Amino acid sequence: MGIFEWPVRVYYEDTDAGGVVYHANYLKFFERARTEYIREKSGVSQQSLLEQSIGFVVRSVMIDYLKGAVLDDKLTVKTHICERKKVSLTFCQELVNDENQVLCKAIVKVACINNKKMKPISIPKDFFSESE
Amino acid sequence: MGIFEWPVRVYYEDTDAGGVVYHANYLKFFERARTEYIREKSGVSQQSLLEQSIGFVVRSVMIDYLKGAVLDDKLTVKTHICERKKVSLTFCQELVNDENQVLCKAIVKVACINNKKMKPISIPKDFFSESE
Amino acid sequence: MGIFEWPVRVYYEDTDAGGVVYHANYLKFFERARTEYIREKSGVSQQSLLEQSIGFVVRSVMIDYLKGAVLDDKLTVKTHICERKKVSLTFCQELVNDENQVLCKAIVKVACINNKKMKPISIPKDFFSESE
Amino acid sequence: MGIFEWPVRVYYEDTDAGGVVYHANYLKFFERARTEYIREKSGVSQQSLLEQSIGFVVRSVMIDYLKGAVLDDKLTVKTHICERKKVSLTFCQELVNDENQVLCKAIVKVACINNKKMKPISIPKDFFSESE
Repeated sequence: MGIFEWPVRVYYEDTDAGGVVYHANYLKFFERARTEYIREKSGVSQQSLLEQSIGFVVRSVMIDYLKGAVLDDKLTVKTHICERKKVSLTFCQELVNDENQVLCKAIVKVACINNKKMKPISIPKDFFSESE
Repeated sequence: MGIFEWPVRVYYEDTDAGGVVYHANYLKFFERARTEYIREKSGVSQQSLLEQSIGFVVRSVMIDYLKGAVLDDKLTVKTHICERKKVSLTFCQELVNDENQVLCKAIVKVACINNKKMKPISIPKDFFSESE
Repeated sequence: MGIFEWPVRVYYEDTDAGGVVYHANYLKFFERARTEYIREKSGVSQQSLLEQSIGFVVRSVMIDYLKGAVLDDKLTVKTHICERKKVSLTFCQELVNDENQVLCKAIVKVACINNKKMKPISIPKDFFSESE
Repeated sequence: MGIFEWPVRVYYEDTDAGGVVYHANYLKFFERARTEYIREKSGVSQQSLLEQSIGFVVRSVMIDYLKGAVLDDKLTVKTHICERKKVSLTFCQELVNDENQVLCKAIVKVACINNKKMKPISIPKDFFSESE
C-alpha cells in the first residue's frame, strides 16, 4: 500500500526545557500520521469507530531517538503497515526532516478492540478493502 | 471551607523550550488540585461521577502568569471555592513556590453536567455535605 | 491586519475521558495559530527569536468554553490582534467548527521578553512592519 | 540498588476519549519515576544538571501495554537500572495497580549528553557513588 507521508510542525507545546521535542511527544506525531493514514486508506474516522464501540489501542511501541527535533521544524512522518493480522496491525514509522534525515523511528503495534468490553475483535472487513 | 493545599513537582513533561513551564500546563496543575479538593471534601472521585454520567466541565478560566516555574520546582497549589451556585462552582487558585511567591493565579468556573446529554444538572446533594 | 485563519484537527492526544477536548489543550490550538500568524505576518520563526534570546511569553488568558470539540473535528482558529503596545500584544481568538459555531474564545496577552534575563523588552522593530 | 517505587495518580489530563490513559502519557509516568530515582539515589536534580549543560536524553524505549489505566487510578511505578555503561543507563520499569497487576512495562535507555553540543559525555562520577 506504499508509504504514507504526513507533515508535522513543531510548536512550543511539543518541546521541553532541554530545547528539543519531549520524547513522549514524538508518539503523538506518529499517532496523528496513523490516524490520517487510516482516514485516507479506508475513509474511516476514529470518532465513527468510537461510536460503534470500536477502537484501535496501542499494544506495543519500539522507538529509537536518533536526533532531536527543535522548535519550528517542519517534519514528515513516513508510515507503512509492516504486518497485518486478523486483530492487529503493525505500523513502521519514521520522522524525517527536510533533508530526509531520520530523527526517530518506531514500530507500533495496534489492536482492534471492542471499547466497551475491552476485548480484541477482528478488524472491520471494509477496512483497506480498496487495496485488495 | 478554608484553603486546600496540594503539592506539585515540575518535570520535563511540563516545561518547554523557553526553559519554563508551558503556559497551558499550569491549568493541569490547577485541575489536579481541584480534583483532590473534591476527593477530600466530598469523598467523590471523578471516575465514580463519570460512571453516573456526571461530569464537571470547565466553563471559563481567567489566568495571570506572574513568574515562570522551572524544572524541579516544588510548588503548592492553594485552592478555595469563591462562588457556589446550583449548577456551578467557581474556584480561586494560586500556584506558589516555597518562598510563598505567587507564580500564577486563576479563577476557574466549572459546571456540573450530564455527560451523555451534555446538559447542565444540579450539583449532587451529598457534595460537600459535611460542611453544611 | 484582518483575521488570520488556521486549521486544527482533533486527535486522540487532545481529548480526555469525558469524550471532548481537554480544557487546557484548547490553549495549544490557540498558540499554534498565534505562531503561524506571526510567521505569516512578520516572517519570523519562534526558533530564530529564541536564538536571539527573545521570546514571547503569555501574561494572561481569559478563555470561555461554549461547546466541546470531539475527536476528528476539523476546526478553524480565527485570530486577530486586538491591542498592540510597545512590549505586549493582545490576541483575540476564536475556535469555530465547520458550521461556524464558536466552540471557545480567548483573549491572550503576550509580552516580549529577553529570555535569559526574563525581562520585558520592546517588540523588535521589523515585526509586522509590512503592515505599516 | 534495589527497586525504586514512585506513586502516580491518574487525572483527566492523562486520559483520552477511549476512556483510558493515552498511550504516550505512560512515558511521562515513567520519566517522573526515573527523575525521582536519580534525585533519591544521587541527590542530583535535573535543573542543576541542565545548568551545567548536562542532560539525560532518551535514546530508545520499548514499551508493552497490557491493561489500560483509568481516571483516579492510584498506581505505582517500579524502577530499577538493568544496565549501566559509561555514557548510558538502561532502566527497566513497570506500572502496577494496587492489586499489583502490571498495566504496562518499559525498557528505557537514556544517554548522558552535553546539552549545548548535543554530544555524549560520561555520566558524572559522583552519580550513584553512594552505592559503590
